[in-house]
Amino acid sequence: MFTKNHIMKDIQKQEDTRRINIKKVGVKTINYPITVLDKAHSRQHTIATVNMYVNLPHHFKGTHMSRFVEILNRFHGAIDIGKFKSILEEMKEKLEAEAAHLEMSFIYFLQRKKDNPECLKSCRYECSIHGSLETEDDLELQVVIPVSTPFREDECKGLPRSLGRWGKTIAAVRFRNFIWIEDIITLIEQAVEEEHEETNAGGEHHVMSVESLTRRIGKSLETERAIRSFTLTVENFADGYSTFATTGTN
Amino acid sequence: MFTKNHIMKDIQKQEDTRRINIKKVGVKTINYPITVLDKAHSRQHTIATVNMYVNLPHHFKGTHMSRFVEILNRFHGAIDIGKFKSILEEMKEKLEAEAAHLEMSFIYFLQRKKDNPECLKSCRYECSIHGSLETEDDLELQVVIPVSTPFREDECKGLPRSLGRWGKTIAAVRFRNFIWIEDIITLIEQAVEEEHEETNAGGEHHVMSVESLTRRIGKSLETERAIRSFTLTVENFADGYSTFATTGTN
Amino acid sequence: MFTKNHIMKDIQKQEDTRRINIKKVGVKTINYPITVLDKAHSRQHTIATVNMYVNLPHHFKGTHMSRFVEILNRFHGAIDIGKFKSILEEMKEKLEAEAAHLEMSFIYFLQRKKDNPECLKSCRYECSIHGSLETEDDLELQVVIPVSTPFREDECKGLPRSLGRWGKTIAAVRFRNFIWIEDIITLIEQAVEEEHEETNAGGEHHVMSVESLTRRIGKSLETERAIRSFTLTVENFADGYSTFATTGTN
Amino acid sequence: MFTKNHIMKDIQKQEDTRRINIKKVGVKTINYPITVLDKAHSRQHTIATVNMYVNLPHHFKGTHMSRFVEILNRFHGAIDIGKFKSILEEMKEKLEAEAAHLEMSFIYFLQRKKDNPECLKSCRYECSIHGSLETEDDLELQVVIPVSTPFREDECKGLPRSLGRWGKTIAAVRFRNFIWIEDIITLIEQAVEEEHEETNAGGEHHVMSVESLTRRIGKSLETERAIRSFTLTVENFADGYSTFATTGTN
Repeated sequence: MFTKNHIMKDIQKQEDTRRINIKKVGVKTINYPITVLDKAHSRQHTIATVNMYVNLPHHFKGTHMSRFVEILNRFHGAIDIGKFKSILEEMKEKLEAEAAHLEMSFIYFLQRKKDNPECLKSCRYECSIHGSLETEDDLELQVVIPVSTPFREDECKGLPRSLGRWGKTIAAVRFRNFIWIEDIITLIEQAVEEEHEETNAGGEHHVMSVESLTRRIGKSLETERAIRSFTLTVENFADGYSTFATTGTN
Repeated sequence: MFTKNHIMKDIQKQEDTRRINIKKVGVKTINYPITVLDKAHSRQHTIATVNMYVNLPHHFKGTHMSRFVEILNRFHGAIDIGKFKSILEEMKEKLEAEAAHLEMSFIYFLQRKKDNPECLKSCRYECSIHGSLETEDDLELQVVIPVSTPFREDECKGLPRSLGRWGKTIAAVRFRNFIWIEDIITLIEQAVEEEHEETNAGGEHHVMSVESLTRRIGKSLETERAIRSFTLTVENFADGYSTFATTGTN
Repeated sequence: MFTKNHIMKDIQKQEDTRRINIKKVGVKTINYPITVLDKAHSRQHTIATVNMYVNLPHHFKGTHMSRFVEILNRFHGAIDIGKFKSILEEMKEKLEAEAAHLEMSFIYFLQRKKDNPECLKSCRYECSIHGSLETEDDLELQVVIPVSTPFREDECKGLPRSLGRWGKTIAAVRFRNFIWIEDIITLIEQAVEEEHEETNAGGEHHVMSVESLTRRIGKSLETERAIRSFTLTVENFADGYSTFATTGTN
Repeated sequence: MFTKNHIMKDIQKQEDTRRINIKKVGVKTINYPITVLDKAHSRQHTIATVNMYVNLPHHFKGTHMSRFVEILNRFHGAIDIGKFKSILEEMKEKLEAEAAHLEMSFIYFLQRKKDNPECLKSCRYECSIHGSLETEDDLELQVVIPVSTPFREDECKGLPRSLGRWGKTIAAVRFRNFIWIEDIITLIEQAVEEEHEETNAGGEHHVMSVESLTRRIGKSLETERAIRSFTLTVENFADGYSTFATTGTN
């Protein structure tokens, strides 16, 4: 289909393409078992989807992708949040990169003490961590917290009926000091509970608004000293679409 | 890696494998634009995911998969539910098959007349049709209908807040006579509305149960003469899990 | 919107609906950390999506869904395949059911000894187990195994380029005797490797066909004494669609 | 659970939350039938997922989300890319917003003239458009193009076997002049074909590398005068993970 002349032209073209700089290069969507440090139990086992990539200096021609895998394999079975900086440093050095990036998304389980063994409350949170290292390292944690309209009938009698899924909050935070994932979850869930209580004060059955809930949780995150900056989105699931509001620092 | 002896053994093995009969063979997950007949507007454009496959007689060795594509391409741009039987007959004949199967899943839009232009009600339904032809043809239609807890505050004032997504109903029906997709949707949505009204009769704020809603919709489907048989599942979304109940003829 | 007469009519209707029998009732899509027995390491931690449901006798009116949760919570943190029968027995008894069903789907990781630390081979398999108990118990295991066209260049030199994802095999098996998940994976992956070798014997670059690979794996599953019955589907990913073939016992 | 004092405290807290500014507010994930202008056929029907949101001035307290729906409903059935600016202007004005955003993602079908009716080539592309209007309007188009390793056996004989899915390219472009979606697709697919030809020149069976393909497509996009700026990612699917490279202007 392609003539020799065509191939010749291509080779010339290829020479031109050498000036097109690759900005980032890496491996994506690796599924990996990891352990996460956990306030209550010290370690929990979960499964992460991992992305690893680097920014290359302009003069660099290609990279050895197998080195990503090599680094990851060495940490296999013992990757946790505390290791982020070490992995990033090793990536930056071994790949002679200007900057290194490590992203992990995973499901975090929160086990709650229950007075009532019949209850099953949501204990599953989608988390992701994006760490990067150029001259300084940077770490952003994102947590997705489901929000439901609390059930107002006597919950003890029979079947656990649900008013349905009201929506979710997505909080992405950067830290000043260390803070446990469960502390962020608790902080947000308390703000949600307060909003529910207030919306329904006086026995009336009102529905929370995304704007008001966004402001309340935003206030809680702003007040927490360990959090340096944040972005917050609150989403209310409607029939066939969602409404949402976003706030954040700066 | 493999020695000659190994290959020899394999060839003998391969002869054995001739006795392993292929039961079904076909193409899957083809995305195709289709048109659906629509009670109100006569034709609506949507996108289907198509599976086509056949059961082969035991003596048959292999099939020409390209023929599936050939048949599909001839109907391209004009596939609709009315063509199911013709496509199935052509598949059965051209592929010399014992039985032919055609599955299409698509999103069906229902446009409603609105007094209030500010409202946006769900008008999107996941449908799928499974047609098969052996000696007789058979057609099953499945519709997924979202269920939300209706909003009880004055809807005219401001923002369309939502109590959230209560759940969904999944109905799979076989027909005695022709019936429009929108008639099945209307039948189920009316049963849901009646259940809501009754659950909240007397101004009390109760929550529908899956068992009761399953029975009510089941009754409606059983009473509809055009429906020969059905399976119905009602699902209530809770915080982190769902509860469900299933009924149906058989 | 609804008059009193309407409500009256509804109540009569509701009485009618009592004759509509609920066939199955339960909880779905619960995310749960589980441990899986593992030939090499004895236990591995993963995350399951769990469905639990029962068939109810006709005279039974409603069920206590909270009991599902109660049973699940008692096994929390220690659910594994070996516990399936105990959980099913407890479900059947506590819910006074005719039959009990437990479904778990999870990602199973297979760690391989590596001579070459630079390699990262797929070690992630989607598994699901469906257990049921009526008078006898029944257990079906399904494993999805990705198939790639093996890379033919010298893998040691540089970047791990891939010819892409050829497809996948989906095997669902019932057992005569106990068999490890990794033994089924190994059995299937060996058949895939043999098929690759044979297709490319003589240095020619051919592409495997779904029919031939289906027959070869089918033969291997049929020959394995520990497997009582199976269904097997082999899928070849093409550009925009897939082709597939299915075989199985009986 | 909450005492009066608690509620009192909350009300004070709520006053504080007034200082938390909502940055963005809107509706998301609305499914809508749209028509797309198409070089060959002038109009094609497809289904879009729509997000609409605005940036609010700081002093603004709340917004009327129903107005988003009102605007969308007025354009219903006749939304196309050419209407982006009009919709954005109406959003900005009606919602008294500082900036308006409209995002649509949809499947775009490309019908090709075929000499051989037996062939089915991929004709399905995931597109998304993000339009925004502050003082100036801005439009970014993203197209995902699947890449497969071309089949090297005689394609006419029998079954359409596939070497599998090699990967995909994701191009996001901003325009200087108008350019058809199909022209961007053609430009990228030609670059892919040239890369394939060159990699396999001399009858050898090599595998394309993400870096080289990224450079070649990057060169093509850079050379196209109608494109003002772009970001390009090329992804190669491996067994259990992907490798990728990114380039772009700026």
